[in-house]
Amino acid sequence: MNCSTLKIEIDNWLSQYFLNKGTYNKCVYEAMNYSITIGGKRIRPILMLLTYSIYNDDYYSIMPLASAIEMIHTYSLIHDDLPSMDNDELRRGKPTNHKVYGEAIAILAGDGLLNEAMNIMFHYCIGKSNLNIEVCAIISKAAGVDGMIGGQVVDILSQNKIIEKDELLYMHSHKTGDLIKAPIICGAMLGNAPQIELDSLMNYGEKLGLAFQITDDILDKIGDTKKLGKKTKSDEINCKTNFVTTFGLEKCKRMSTKLIMECIEILHSVQKDTTSLEEITLFLLKREF
Amino acid sequence: MNCSTLKIEIDNWLSQYFLNKGTYNKCVYEAMNYSITIGGKRIRPILMLLTYSIYNDDYYSIMPLASAIEMIHTYSLIHDDLPSMDNDELRRGKPTNHKVYGEAIAILAGDGLLNEAMNIMFHYCIGKSNLNIEVCAIISKAAGVDGMIGGQVVDILSQNKIIEKDELLYMHSHKTGDLIKAPIICGAMLGNAPQIELDSLMNYGEKLGLAFQITDDILDKIGDTKKLGKKTKSDEINCKTNFVTTFGLEKCKRMSTKLIMECIEILHSVQKDTTSLEEITLFLLKREF
Repeated sequence: MNCSTLKIEIDNWLSQYFLNKGTYNKCVYEAMNYSITIGGKRIRPILMLLTYSIYNDDYYSIMPLASAIEMIHTYSLIHDDLPSMDNDELRRGKPTNHKVYGEAIAILAGDGLLNEAMNIMFHYCIGKSNLNIEVCAIISKAAGVDGMIGGQVVDILSQNKIIEKDELLYMHSHKTGDLIKAPIICGAMLGNAPQIELDSLMNYGEKLGLAFQITDDILDKIGDTKKLGKKTKSDEINCKTNFVTTFGLEKCKRMSTKLIMECIEILHSVQKDTTSLEEITLFLLKREF
Repeated sequence: MNCSTLKIEIDNWLSQYFLNKGTYNKCVYEAMNYSITIGGKRIRPILMLLTYSIYNDDYYSIMPLASAIEMIHTYSLIHDDLPSMDNDELRRGKPTNHKVYGEAIAILAGDGLLNEAMNIMFHYCIGKSNLNIEVCAIISKAAGVDGMIGGQVVDILSQNKIIEKDELLYMHSHKTGDLIKAPIICGAMLGNAPQIELDSLMNYGEKLGLAFQITDDILDKIGDTKKLGKKTKSDEINCKTNFVTTFGLEKCKRMSTKLIMECIEILHSVQKDTTSLEEITLFLLKREF
């Protein structure tokens, strides 16, 4: 099993999920379906399935949880793109949700995706062991005010002002990092990884999340709108502090490469087959810039 | 124990919850705290605690779940008030969340409250029986796209057009009804009510939710902004179909009274002390109009 196969399976699961749902509320299902099926690398669910697969073969059994994380990620993009937030018109090379469905429905589609992710998690937990609820609590915390939402708050507030390194690290470790780390930890927990490997994978998740965000900032600076499918230079336009404005482009490239190498080293320390996780880790470094 | 005592306990629980939380994200905690402590009748958590109390004395043990429902209700008000939705400037007699904190933080405060409610529910379920997860799944569904969000979607889409009775009923039974029904059913389930009384209380919740919305529509037509703490005639201004525009004022008053009387009858059929539930049911009928 490799990353491409998993991506296809996740895409299929998600594209079936909202199909033919709704009556008078059909419009919001269409808006949710639009953003969830418009593309995306599916990195978060892939990370969860791969980490679980280190210890177990039946990865398809946790597909609902992996897909719920993608729904949370997608809701955050819909809300982040809104005119009162980043005011973006392009996402994954297509018009953003509010450009297609209007602001009101876009806000409700975002709310709906977060809520549906939680629905899926509660239903997943019925009749299962405590471990599953603990895992869902971790995902929910990572998405919340002390997680992803908290990072986005600092991002919004940092517009037009220079922020210190501590605050920059807070912003990115929560805005992006928490929802990269959570699926890795949760996949390992659900797979019943031994504590020592759980700690290693937590460390891996931490570094990967940071590397991911640094790469994002590099791409925002020198990436190509067409290839990325979203507007670049948005931090520059919105006068936001990011890793590139703080450390400079070259240092960021070195930081990112170093972190990815450390990630690979950690994966080598796990006494199991981590080939596919290494593959996706290197892919993240090689994103085009 | 009566409704006023419960309201004070809920107010206290909620006003403590967000106190002194947050670091760089402090602003969103303040915005969440602003809307959750600004007032409100706390009808939904009171209904849950009262229904549970029919069967058990230790109602304080389910306070986290009751308060989570109030957080969901509050998030929905913050998002409904946004400029792209109902564009309201007044709520509970005070400026709406986005008037104080700006649109971006208001959206994130709403997201944060929904997410925090789910956090509370997952944590509540850890180490507890399956029944608790089932209850949380009911709350989560009631809040979601086939529940409250679905109703709000139809509400938004119904602006400037006349909708049929079926659609009006769909809108209100979901927008308002589902989050009135859910705490009643969940309180009864957590209290281990016998199936026959669970069915009765479900029926009670259905009728109460409908009566509540009809009263809201009456108040929107003839209520007093000062007493209600929110703008009236908003459906008229936004050209929306509601119970009053569909059935007329007098018929609505009769419908509401009839439903409340049926609610009282159902409560009498329950072979336990339902005095406090009757009290809050009659209070809903007597809201000022």
